[in-house]
Amino acid sequence: MIVLRTPKGWTGPKEINGHKAEGSWRSHQVPFSDVRTNPTHLKLLEDWMHGYRPDELFDADGRLVPELRELAPSGGRRMSANPHTNGGLLRRDLKLPDFRDYAVQVPDDQKGKVLCENTRPLGEFLRDVMRNNMTNFRLFGPDETASNRLQAVYEVSKKVWMADLLPEDADGGELSRDGRVMEMLSEHTLIGWLEGYLLSGRHGFFHTYEAFAHVIDSMFNQHAKWLDISKNHVPWRASVASQNILLSSTVWRQDHNGFSHQDPGFIDLVTNKSPSVCRVYLPPDANTLLAVADRCLRSTDCINVIVADKQKHLQFSTIDEAVVHCAKGIGIWGRASNDEGVEPDVVMACCGDVATQEALAATALLREHLPDLKVRFVNVVDLYKLQPASEHPHGSTDREFDALFTTDKPVIFNFHGYPWLIHKLAYRFKNHENLHVRGYKERGNINTPLELAILNQTDRFTLVIDVIDWVPGLAARAAHLKERMKNEIILNLAYAHEHGTDREEITNWVWPL
Amino acid sequence: MIVLRTPKGWTGPKEINGHKAEGSWRSHQVPFSDVRTNPTHLKLLEDWMHGYRPDELFDADGRLVPELRELAPSGGRRMSANPHTNGGLLRRDLKLPDFRDYAVQVPDDQKGKVLCENTRPLGEFLRDVMRNNMTNFRLFGPDETASNRLQAVYEVSKKVWMADLLPEDADGGELSRDGRVMEMLSEHTLIGWLEGYLLSGRHGFFHTYEAFAHVIDSMFNQHAKWLDISKNHVPWRASVASQNILLSSTVWRQDHNGFSHQDPGFIDLVTNKSPSVCRVYLPPDANTLLAVADRCLRSTDCINVIVADKQKHLQFSTIDEAVVHCAKGIGIWGRASNDEGVEPDVVMACCGDVATQEALAATALLREHLPDLKVRFVNVVDLYKLQPASEHPHGSTDREFDALFTTDKPVIFNFHGYPWLIHKLAYRFKNHENLHVRGYKERGNINTPLELAILNQTDRFTLVIDVIDWVPGLAARAAHLKERMKNEIILNLAYAHEHGTDREEITNWVWPL
Repeated sequence: MIVLRTPKGWTGPKEINGHKAEGSWRSHQVPFSDVRTNPTHLKLLEDWMHGYRPDELFDADGRLVPELRELAPSGGRRMSANPHTNGGLLRRDLKLPDFRDYAVQVPDDQKGKVLCENTRPLGEFLRDVMRNNMTNFRLFGPDETASNRLQAVYEVSKKVWMADLLPEDADGGELSRDGRVMEMLSEHTLIGWLEGYLLSGRHGFFHTYEAFAHVIDSMFNQHAKWLDISKNHVPWRASVASQNILLSSTVWRQDHNGFSHQDPGFIDLVTNKSPSVCRVYLPPDANTLLAVADRCLRSTDCINVIVADKQKHLQFSTIDEAVVHCAKGIGIWGRASNDEGVEPDVVMACCGDVATQEALAATALLREHLPDLKVRFVNVVDLYKLQPASEHPHGSTDREFDALFTTDKPVIFNFHGYPWLIHKLAYRFKNHENLHVRGYKERGNINTPLELAILNQTDRFTLVIDVIDWVPGLAARAAHLKERMKNEIILNLAYAHEHGTDREEITNWVWPL
Repeated sequence: MIVLRTPKGWTGPKEINGHKAEGSWRSHQVPFSDVRTNPTHLKLLEDWMHGYRPDELFDADGRLVPELRELAPSGGRRMSANPHTNGGLLRRDLKLPDFRDYAVQVPDDQKGKVLCENTRPLGEFLRDVMRNNMTNFRLFGPDETASNRLQAVYEVSKKVWMADLLPEDADGGELSRDGRVMEMLSEHTLIGWLEGYLLSGRHGFFHTYEAFAHVIDSMFNQHAKWLDISKNHVPWRASVASQNILLSSTVWRQDHNGFSHQDPGFIDLVTNKSPSVCRVYLPPDANTLLAVADRCLRSTDCINVIVADKQKHLQFSTIDEAVVHCAKGIGIWGRASNDEGVEPDVVMACCGDVATQEALAATALLREHLPDLKVRFVNVVDLYKLQPASEHPHGSTDREFDALFTTDKPVIFNFHGYPWLIHKLAYRFKNHENLHVRGYKERGNINTPLELAILNQTDRFTLVIDVIDWVPGLAARAAHLKERMKNEIILNLAYAHEHGTDREEITNWVWPL
């Protein structure tokens, strides 16, 4: 590496109209712009340009003289062809273990009943990804690897640490001079490291608390723009591994941290950037998270954002079902639905782990209390399935969207993030006018899980009320059920305030059907 | 100020199960959680709690003993009542000059014809705001005060500078030990300074290149959350001055900087935060910018985001018209419309300076070539006027929205930012299904202004085509005009590629009617 320090505007005019130019802030601007009308400035420009002695550099036809042309490197020494700058040339596919081997066992009679921390199996998968790729894979995160339940990776490689070591660090500190886990409470530094690592041909995985992904918004924007141009306009640039970003410790489970840690808006930002490079996944359970992570680690030239919480959640899918569901990106969940063979009265849709749980709980209530109501249950893993195929490579055609969401039935959509993001994506589809979205709307504090859901109207009781309000004819005959739901909201809020926890029947709720 | 450095977990257990706790990372976690089931840990907790000698601190009823109670400060010495922490108590209104005195003169026959750099009169206004308030107002910005055309402030106060001074700095460096203009190429530092300044009872104004506002996304989020809680849930907290953020050097005029400087998405982020504290204004010209800035400087407990470019733009409003237009926040522009007294065939709507110019140019083309087409021209200054009144204090009622946009006519909306933001705001209104929005969609490079508009389909010709496509009956009879518009797009792109500038008729376009 050569570091060359020069005066700003070096070799330009030393002075312009008596003001210092070379070596001053004036050389950061256009030093003078009126050469068409000001002969003095035109002369200054001419002298400046002649200062480079073009007569000696170019021949009579304006071509660079041969001696200089020969100085330019050729072949692999050209900057664009050099693997130091075109790092994708060095990229080798990761040696990936089979993600199915890390699956949570979800027997048929335990679906929606068994609990698991969604990110813990992912940690075990990433441990073996690292074990198989000890020269070209690293994990990046602020000091949250254990908090986000990915600590299995420490079995293979520790946190890299270059500063002093204390005796007690040997006891669980997980520090090492040659560790491959990059931790620092600076999201900026981490994402910068990751970018450099990817652009030099390696692979990586970044994770952070969801709310603090906004710290790297601007860096994400620039990387997305760089990828878009590289992929679509610079054919000589070799593909690089995708930037994989896991957002965990999400908005709905910040029971101790509160309002400051509640912000699901990073994906709003992502959906503004080029569709050719952006992907967003919200797997509802541990096995779908494994399937999504495997896909992301195999992909190139994208930014993959995965939103998945670290807490214990209900598990819905066997690994084989997860593979199919993630391949489709969106699908009907048969067991939760009761509309097979007929038109549904309502579509209950959801996206995100906690949002899915509450939508399922609402569906169970509806099926118990309004057994003749035909409910279709749709889960979304791949957020871009909600955009038209004309707008995103993962988008849905009208036929696909209409088949799932109907063209005229109410759709109650429970979303992990800000609710209007769904409208922003799906507004072109025919049934958009019947789409009613719930999501986070900046109502939060140090709340119990149900209390937070109620404040933002993403809870099971509000969703049941939404169905009663929007399905034609239900308002009159289901008024008593609606009343009970309103009672439940009041009673559960009161319980949460008094006890600081949710009722056992809420905390221990499982899918009953 | 007292700085007290203590071991982490000081006064907690020194060791837990043989592992170091006090003074180690373990004290950042929950040190042990199984006290209900583990008698050893219960004893450890009991000993720990007894370590604080509660017998000496509380009386038999559990009340703090009088000697300790008396230690707590009273009245203005309480932390919440102390102006050092509740800085709003110290806030005095700014002594504001009359913003009308800084107006651009726009004679009736010069509307849409005279040019002005939109932010330059604002700089003169801010100069005198500073002059009148030399102890409680500061301007904050990365090294762009001159670039954003606000340099008139240097007539009153310079950039504060604490490091070495060179002789040439006296020549235009605008540096001073006691300057009140805070410049540093670190948006983080600046917005942190501004927050501290506001929270201690003073006033300020921050400006930055639009694309780089994302650097402070996370800090914006936290300040918005803090304001929301303070304003709505903490009655003792006195109001503080609003955080005023000007985004200039915007996406549409990055002719030299290109793609990396094109990002109008900061306002997408703003619209996710609490409606009670967020405001967004897109004044179309210099006089509306003055009226908006005056309003922002008078407001409290808000974050006001103003989007206004620094380049020369056409001027549309006298200062009196600007006052009325900004007070409404949205309105019909009579001179551009020809539908008075009848139902319009189409509503041409726009928001943002460049977007307004292109929408006007499209309207002029329509009125020239399709004189019997009834066009209503609507301009939006206050972005939240596009949300329902139920969602934002500045929102529109159905009646207000429907009156402007009709309930069944096509609306062609030319927007400064990402187009889907308008759908995100307005999706609840009846005529949403006829709303067709153009805006920036990540298609850019080092382009001429018209070329950039064409690539993103916000140009006059595309807007005319949109009208022909969406107004029933026009497709057939206006096919020739549509064909000419397509030709114009191709020819203008070719010209821009060949000459690196737009045609004179584009660059010098003025409103013709």
